Amino acid sequence: MHPLIKNVEYAVRGTLPIRAEALSKQLKTDPSNSTFNKVIFCNIGNPQQLNQKPITFFRQVASLCENPELLKVENREIISKLYPADAINRAEILLKNIGSIGAYSHSKGIPYIRNNVAKFIERRDGYKTDPDDIFLTQGASEGVQKVIQLLTEHNKTGIMIPIPQYPLYSATLSLVDAKPVPYYLDEQNNWGLDRKRLEKSVKEARDQNVDVRALVIINPGNPTGQCLSEENMRDIIDFCHIERIVLLADEVYQTNIYQPDRRPFHSFKKVLKSMSHEYQEQELFSFHSISKGMIGECGRRGGYFECVNIDPQIMDQLYKISSVSLCPNIHGQIMVDLMTNPPVEGDESYLQYKEEIDTIYQSLRRRAIKLANCFNGLKGTTCNGAEGAMYLFPQIRLPKKAIKAADKAGMAADTFYSLAMLDATGVCVVPGTGFGQEQGTYHFRSTFLPEEHLFDKFCSSIETFHEDFFNKYKD
Amino acid sequence: MHPLIKNVEYAVRGTLPIRAEALSKQLKTDPSNSTFNKVIFCNIGNPQQLNQKPITFFRQVASLCENPELLKVENREIISKLYPADAINRAEILLKNIGSIGAYSHSKGIPYIRNNVAKFIERRDGYKTDPDDIFLTQGASEGVQKVIQLLTEHNKTGIMIPIPQYPLYSATLSLVDAKPVPYYLDEQNNWGLDRKRLEKSVKEARDQNVDVRALVIINPGNPTGQCLSEENMRDIIDFCHIERIVLLADEVYQTNIYQPDRRPFHSFKKVLKSMSHEYQEQELFSFHSISKGMIGECGRRGGYFECVNIDPQIMDQLYKISSVSLCPNIHGQIMVDLMTNPPVEGDESYLQYKEEIDTIYQSLRRRAIKLANCFNGLKGTTCNGAEGAMYLFPQIRLPKKAIKAADKAGMAADTFYSLAMLDATGVCVVPGTGFGQEQGTYHFRSTFLPEEHLFDKFCSSIETFHEDFFNKYKD
Repeated sequence: MHPLIKNVEYAVRGTLPIRAEALSKQLKTDPSNSTFNKVIFCNIGNPQQLNQKPITFFRQVASLCENPELLKVENREIISKLYPADAINRAEILLKNIGSIGAYSHSKGIPYIRNNVAKFIERRDGYKTDPDDIFLTQGASEGVQKVIQLLTEHNKTGIMIPIPQYPLYSATLSLVDAKPVPYYLDEQNNWGLDRKRLEKSVKEARDQNVDVRALVIINPGNPTGQCLSEENMRDIIDFCHIERIVLLADEVYQTNIYQPDRRPFHSFKKVLKSMSHEYQEQELFSFHSISKGMIGECGRRGGYFECVNIDPQIMDQLYKISSVSLCPNIHGQIMVDLMTNPPVEGDESYLQYKEEIDTIYQSLRRRAIKLANCFNGLKGTTCNGAEGAMYLFPQIRLPKKAIKAADKAGMAADTFYSLAMLDATGVCVVPGTGFGQEQGTYHFRSTFLPEEHLFDKFCSSIETFHEDFFNKYKD
Repeated sequence: MHPLIKNVEYAVRGTLPIRAEALSKQLKTDPSNSTFNKVIFCNIGNPQQLNQKPITFFRQVASLCENPELLKVENREIISKLYPADAINRAEILLKNIGSIGAYSHSKGIPYIRNNVAKFIERRDGYKTDPDDIFLTQGASEGVQKVIQLLTEHNKTGIMIPIPQYPLYSATLSLVDAKPVPYYLDEQNNWGLDRKRLEKSVKEARDQNVDVRALVIINPGNPTGQCLSEENMRDIIDFCHIERIVLLADEVYQTNIYQPDRRPFHSFKKVLKSMSHEYQEQELFSFHSISKGMIGECGRRGGYFECVNIDPQIMDQLYKISSVSLCPNIHGQIMVDLMTNPPVEGDESYLQYKEEIDTIYQSLRRRAIKLANCFNGLKGTTCNGAEGAMYLFPQIRLPKKAIKAADKAGMAADTFYSLAMLDATGVCVVPGTGFGQEQGTYHFRSTFLPEEHLFDKFCSSIETFHEDFFNKYKD
């Protein structure tokens, strides 16, 4: 068996979720034996699993592309009762440019859609974008994995990752045998990023002969939810420039920003382009996804990355390995088109689209605040508010007795706590160990995606559990 | 840059297709400058790109799953005019079992669908199948890549592959730094498989300290189209058993069998299960796909693999690395369900479904014969008929002058010939170099997928080109 695969850890789908699935199965066959009637999967940002409604216009267009028979002249009258004219029109344009959605496309993605993505980035940032710099992918994860694989030259290649981080990064580094070079986010400072920590981290790694090549930044953050200031972003770009490090910007939560002074989103590309000429060769990959934002179309596996100032040889190699997997799935590509090219003012579907997006956004914002308040009200617990993204990452100061009990049970104390929560409430979160945390601290990550009408009940079940747990293990 | 990525070659999407794409673009902007009006992509088994019609029932179900609004009570009367009752019913069952198609599923695939796949295999082979042994994937390619990656322990791990082979295999071995251990198919003997060649190949590899772990077999063959006899399959299983080698059976063309005495398809699992008890621990992975057969839904990226007698620890690791990519896309999963669970006699859609499948099958069969006849009529060319799959792999005995000219142009002679064909006719094939061939022989692979009403024209354009080429380079 491949020794590197053995080393991989992926907590978002690890011990907790596996137990949660078993519980969920058990509840279906014998619900009488449990204090809760449903497992609530807060381990993963999977909005539609928790009944978030898909965007109507997007699904309309996708279903017409799926069944072009509906677009035939003889069906026009009937479908005009089911579909608005702009959805029909959009499906026709897409099919004209795609051909059949049952065919393999260009390995970088359909040229027409890459072109639309480029225009979207231009509108967002105000700087020219070349469609040839865009690779469509099966979710942002695939892009991240390909780029990290390519950047890894040998087992002393170092990639800087934040701690706490999204475990896709640590898992991918394990798989390709690259060295993770951690830099710690500052919990006291709202999970902010301190340049001195970056400098310290790169120096330490290089002192150990690690060849540091890239820095991963997740903005808005996962699991931490922080949104970087422009000043901070400039600082990071300057750091990468000086240290000759490629910047990998995971920007999948770019529309999940709840902190008013961080809106609208500033991409790393925009900030880079606004800097002086000596920065204009800084290498940057930016990743985006249809799974997050207010869209939440996770199951479709769609996304893209943009290459900024990347050597054409590297791009050729990325194209080549993309071609071994043939192409990203067309349904994901169509959704990337819709995400980057939604209805605009004046379109028949615009008002409904806008209302749906706004409703989800406002609700996410309310739930983020509610859950942070809940966590901050728990004994021994502090939690930074979510400036963005879909998660909170509270710190729990566990009683010594609980830590001992965890030790006896052969597990990390945060896993012990999270498992107890799952068994008592049906709420599945991910222990901090899976993301990395300062030694001696304990956290967990929870999404704030449970439905709003169930949210108070959700919070109070956590409160009750926490109190019971702290009573049970009182020092 | 990762040194292994540099080494990867992938001809199906290599020099020829890149030039073909450029020509195709050029034809759109300035068609006057060319002797042909369209590039015909025969480099890849991509039926819907060449206007093969999707299966109506499958697309109907998929479009309803995409837009569940259509299933609401108030729309029932309207959609009953557009959709047959069994398509509506099937979409409802799927959605009930999936939840939203916009949500991540279980990383091995939706349990309900894996269950249906297991039942399909049971019906096909007559032996019990455990749904937990099934992994749904984004096309067969993803499964192949994951399994080969996992089986590779170090850079002396050897994987036996046929020559000629589908370049996914050589590319994947390059990427994971495993040693390809080639065994040659016998062109004189209709691309048959000779056990002595397997024995010779494994011995030679082991003599060089290669740790041979697995054998890849593609049946029906790609690019060769051979269909193995049951006797031959037993022989291969016996070989794997004796040599303690895992068998990787690429069975994606299992419904593309045109040779009457090879129908119905015998899977490696079925043959294995029919053998005596000492073979019943033989490890086997079997791969299948929605991209081939009469379905040809390549763009959707769907497939599965079954693990037979695979160590649970290996299966756990496969599950873990699957979970890093979260899940296969749901649209591909739905199509796997439909492929393995199509309308049956008595269903409203059965007759239409059967007619569509039969029409495509008969047409593929006719085109396979027509193209083989065309190739066999060419000067210096011989071509085994396609017992199965979607390709022919003719051998061309090129004039010495052509070989010299190719040498001067700095390319392999089969690439030189194929490029000349592309420039003269717009037909894009893949040179034999991309698949491997006996030294000193020249081949190319062409699909027989161009539309039947254009097929005579397609053949005669190749004939004219070939004659011109042979006249130009006459020795």
